[in-house]
Amino acid sequence: MKREGIIFIISAPSGAGKTTLCKEVIDIFRNLRHSVSYTTRQARPGEVHGRDYFFVSPDEFQRMTAAGEFAEWAEVHGNLYGTAVKTLEEYRKSGVDVILDIDCQGAHQLKERYQGGVFIFILPPSFKELRRRLDNRNSDSVEVIERRIECAAAEIKESRWYDYIIVNDVFSKAVEELKSVLIAERCRTRRVLDAVAEMFDIT
Amino acid sequence: MKREGIIFIISAPSGAGKTTLCKEVIDIFRNLRHSVSYTTRQARPGEVHGRDYFFVSPDEFQRMTAAGEFAEWAEVHGNLYGTAVKTLEEYRKSGVDVILDIDCQGAHQLKERYQGGVFIFILPPSFKELRRRLDNRNSDSVEVIERRIECAAAEIKESRWYDYIIVNDVFSKAVEELKSVLIAERCRTRRVLDAVAEMFDIT
Repeated sequence: MKREGIIFIISAPSGAGKTTLCKEVIDIFRNLRHSVSYTTRQARPGEVHGRDYFFVSPDEFQRMTAAGEFAEWAEVHGNLYGTAVKTLEEYRKSGVDVILDIDCQGAHQLKERYQGGVFIFILPPSFKELRRRLDNRNSDSVEVIERRIECAAAEIKESRWYDYIIVNDVFSKAVEELKSVLIAERCRTRRVLDAVAEMFDIT
Repeated sequence: MKREGIIFIISAPSGAGKTTLCKEVIDIFRNLRHSVSYTTRQARPGEVHGRDYFFVSPDEFQRMTAAGEFAEWAEVHGNLYGTAVKTLEEYRKSGVDVILDIDCQGAHQLKERYQGGVFIFILPPSFKELRRRLDNRNSDSVEVIERRIECAAAEIKESRWYDYIIVNDVFSKAVEELKSVLIAERCRTRRVLDAVAEMFDIT
């Protein structure tokens, strides 16, 4: 059945396991891609322009913002990140589903624009477990961890306006749930009705 | 997380494979039951009262209808079938999900009553395949098959107001899709928000 690509918007507080979860489902589904964002930050070693990000200058980013070329954009730790309308439109038209791994601020901008978008929030099982995971990363200072926990508390409140909430307690269960949301949304009547009407010659 | 049981209403034209699909997912999920209906038809050999159906007299069925004890009821081939409000309420309160395998007529009655219900329509891949499946049953006369195909054409039009449409072409794929709808609906924000608010002390 020919259908439009679906936009899945996934948000989570840092440490909830969003990145690993997204990577897992993108590996499973052939018809699902990770949306490539534009950013003004410097490429890190190994990052490839057009695969990991589109790396652009602050001037170019500014021009794109002014021209309304972003579906959403946000400043994070002094760098700008944005998703181009063009990128999303290309996926939609080609029938490829896309995952946008973005914060609540960006998700909010998309909520108004994309009625057909599916908004998924990933939660840690508790603040205690979130702290344990952030501690185990060994990459952040105590201050940074404290700030992340505070941010998490604020972000979790945003979960209420998402369509789905997945609690990442047991990883395999969270993967199963995210997979299920992706499959179920493809079966939503409003997405398949045109194809069904054609199959059965319903007018 | 403590939550209310979900009511899944599944309809399909005869020959779409609904019964087999429902049986398959009920075997998979511990927390999912097949709703037991009331009927005025005679029990067939092997059928158990309270497991397969609640077998009642036409008078008793009539009394229950008049008393508003049915969430939905319908007459099918001269027999009456109905789902008791009490049955659904018990499942809902005990947090057990339930599958109602009913026709469009009954589903329509539930649509208005149960806002939280999930309506799923199972389709055959084509009229041609539907006819092949009905022929292969070897249990129905040519006239009965013709009538079933005609009914199917009318029923398929009803699929437009269901929440999900699953095309049962490859059985394993249809099982995966039905499973996914059941899991995804359990992650819907409106169903888990109370539990999440409690977990994270959100007011």
